[in-house]
Amino acid sequence: MTSTPRVRLDPSTRREQLLTLGVRLLATRSLDQLSIETLAEEAGISRGLLYHYFGNKSDFHEAVVRRAADDLIEATMPPPDDDPLARLAYGVAAYLDYVVENYEGYLSLVKGAGGGNPKLRAIYEEARTALTERLFEEDPDGLMLTDNPLTRMVVHSWSAMVEDMVLSWARDPAGVEREELLALMGGALVSLVDLAR
Amino acid sequence: MTSTPRVRLDPSTRREQLLTLGVRLLATRSLDQLSIETLAEEAGISRGLLYHYFGNKSDFHEAVVRRAADDLIEATMPPPDDDPLARLAYGVAAYLDYVVENYEGYLSLVKGAGGGNPKLRAIYEEARTALTERLFEEDPDGLMLTDNPLTRMVVHSWSAMVEDMVLSWARDPAGVEREELLALMGGALVSLVDLAR
Repeated sequence: MTSTPRVRLDPSTRREQLLTLGVRLLATRSLDQLSIETLAEEAGISRGLLYHYFGNKSDFHEAVVRRAADDLIEATMPPPDDDPLARLAYGVAAYLDYVVENYEGYLSLVKGAGGGNPKLRAIYEEARTALTERLFEEDPDGLMLTDNPLTRMVVHSWSAMVEDMVLSWARDPAGVEREELLALMGGALVSLVDLAR
Repeated sequence: MTSTPRVRLDPSTRREQLLTLGVRLLATRSLDQLSIETLAEEAGISRGLLYHYFGNKSDFHEAVVRRAADDLIEATMPPPDDDPLARLAYGVAAYLDYVVENYEGYLSLVKGAGGGNPKLRAIYEEARTALTERLFEEDPDGLMLTDNPLTRMVVHSWSAMVEDMVLSWARDPAGVEREELLALMGGALVSLVDLAR
């Protein structure tokens, strides 16, 4: 029998690997169900070592959620494109896929942030700001969005609407097709911005 | 000096009065800040008597929030009108005014429900269902809304959007006029339903 030689990883690489595993585990369970014990078992290492890497449970959750938020921001980054509508469509589709694939963890983040955990709330708000801010940054000439307080309010509330749609669709599609939903979510922003002109 | 004679109230009337006071106190403070002690002080009666009426803190909060939800449902009930658009406009304006006048309490209800308190969540969901269900009931001929799963999804997510808009406007109007916001919120539903056809 041969076995893969164990490679000694430096601590920061090891920590990154463990975070990646934590985010993967979060796809199918809530944050409450993701304990350091669960991660230790899945990673095949001691709880003591995990406490060494992550401190306490609250710091561990914060690190996993921060990584999940970074993943979401990266996953929904459209390729360079001159057309704001094409970038919007890409972002919306990638967001839908991300939430469907990471449903339990995403839902628990929304609940944790909504319930007033200040650290989770801050990470959630940062991620949401990054996603909506991008729409303005990608459109410096204001082809789709004019940067003013009313449009900002519209974009923020549109993102709340999209989150609600995606979460209910992920829970129960109720016969609504993916393409139909995507067209609706993208089209909604265009219509709302038009109404707010 | 004359004084108003003290009237002996039956227990259920007294409880109703205390709930009304609780809801009024909730306008300017969060649920966490609304203790039985605060209510006892404001009502000028003993804490012991309040525990007699409401049991424990959690039951007290549930009773106050249920009353607040009933108030919201009643306050946003449009007068009979054949025109679904007029009823929509009335409901949206009444909802905005209610949230502005009861900002702290409403925000804490949203947070409590979002944070996974199952009883608060149930009351919140019931109220939201009553508000959106009404739009379908008021429009049996489908003049504005056709009753199907996609339209239901749209109306639910529209209500999430409206809540987000109203909460951010109540916090900071950012120069957006009340009438402008009302037109946007009502118009949004019409546009969204149109997109979803």
